[in-house]
Amino acid sequence: MDTNTIAVIGGTGDQGLGLALRWAMAGRRVLVGSRDPARAAAAAENIRARAGASVPVSGSGNPEAAASAELVVLTVPFMAQIETLKSIAPAMRPGQILVDVTVPLEAAVGGAPTRTLGVWAGSAAEQAAANVPAGVEVAAAFHNVSAYALRHLEHAIDCDVLVCAERPETRAAVRPWVEAIRDCRYVDGGRLENARIVEALTALLIGMNVRYKTHAAGIRITGLPKRARDDAGGQRAEKQ
Amino acid sequence: MDTNTIAVIGGTGDQGLGLALRWAMAGRRVLVGSRDPARAAAAAENIRARAGASVPVSGSGNPEAAASAELVVLTVPFMAQIETLKSIAPAMRPGQILVDVTVPLEAAVGGAPTRTLGVWAGSAAEQAAANVPAGVEVAAAFHNVSAYALRHLEHAIDCDVLVCAERPETRAAVRPWVEAIRDCRYVDGGRLENARIVEALTALLIGMNVRYKTHAAGIRITGLPKRARDDAGGQRAEKQ
Repeated sequence: MDTNTIAVIGGTGDQGLGLALRWAMAGRRVLVGSRDPARAAAAAENIRARAGASVPVSGSGNPEAAASAELVVLTVPFMAQIETLKSIAPAMRPGQILVDVTVPLEAAVGGAPTRTLGVWAGSAAEQAAANVPAGVEVAAAFHNVSAYALRHLEHAIDCDVLVCAERPETRAAVRPWVEAIRDCRYVDGGRLENARIVEALTALLIGMNVRYKTHAAGIRITGLPKRARDDAGGQRAEKQ
Repeated sequence: MDTNTIAVIGGTGDQGLGLALRWAMAGRRVLVGSRDPARAAAAAENIRARAGASVPVSGSGNPEAAASAELVVLTVPFMAQIETLKSIAPAMRPGQILVDVTVPLEAAVGGAPTRTLGVWAGSAAEQAAANVPAGVEVAAAFHNVSAYALRHLEHAIDCDVLVCAERPETRAAVRPWVEAIRDCRYVDGGRLENARIVEALTALLIGMNVRYKTHAAGIRITGLPKRARDDAGGQRAEKQ
């Protein structure tokens, strides 16, 4: 398994571009995907201009990017999630991990970005799990990291990343990608269904940004013992 | 308005007793309410034994406690929320603020404390608002503060308290009670509907406690500018 490469589907959007930039800065190989390959190439060029001409970033259509990495990060607006998953499904294969970053904001239907829609599956991540090919596992992560902070390199990323997935092994596979972003901390978010809460937290943080006139509200979980934190993800976690 | 007195309905439970203890430690007048006045009196005695014999803490039935303070904190299990509100409604009057701490955990119906139930009103706090007398305003707060940490005085309370209410003035009235608890920080949580997310966060933190084998998982919001934080709660907040 190539653990140094990541595909960012919808990588020309705010969150996707920010994550791609940070991973490129960390020396990882990043495949930026977009419906429009020309826009993906432009985004890759933009990242090289900021992260250094030698960083291994390339742009392509979404299916081509999704076919070329073990970890595939989905960063598209909620209204485009299912359609995008259908478009990359034929390119995916068993064993890959899809990291869903989708948040079902009410803004998708003309409402507020501070509210979420109800999703039949329970969360956008569980909806993703219902729309990937058999054998592809889904994790949910990176919802609460400010796109603004990601894209402004002078900003520290003062935020925990809560990673949810059915299997602890899936969460563990995402962990190095959290830790590749300076100051981000991995927190074991438990089962995929917990994405219902983690996704909604994004709407709450967007409201904080409005009320406090900032762009970088984030979250830290306090009170976690360091050693236990590093050990988390074992059998006990399976039950939650 | 007597701003130095608070009633804690269901104050013999873990969360209520913990809050009452911390407020008593801060020199506030605390009225502990319980269905059973004898249990309330015992809880008050317990608090005096820990916080000092001279602290002004008393115990009584819930309606009597609810009648005697401007701020009435409701800390009962979800299954007892409506019944308790009905029992104190005749004792309440316009102008009081009910601070709801209820979390609709699935445990209320024999399920997991790491999941929430759907509430028709949207949240337990909005359900409370539908069950208080006219003129009583509802705020939602203190859900995410660990009862364990509250009751163990050697523990710092490393946790923000997100306060939600329709009117900024209502949130502002709750703020001093947050700041009376050492190390707690007030964060403007916006409108009451945001309690849907803040309540659910409690279930997520309970899962963290299980996975990380601790009792005191909490939350901090990062990235809030200090000055703007202190100014928050103005007109803009009304929209969120």
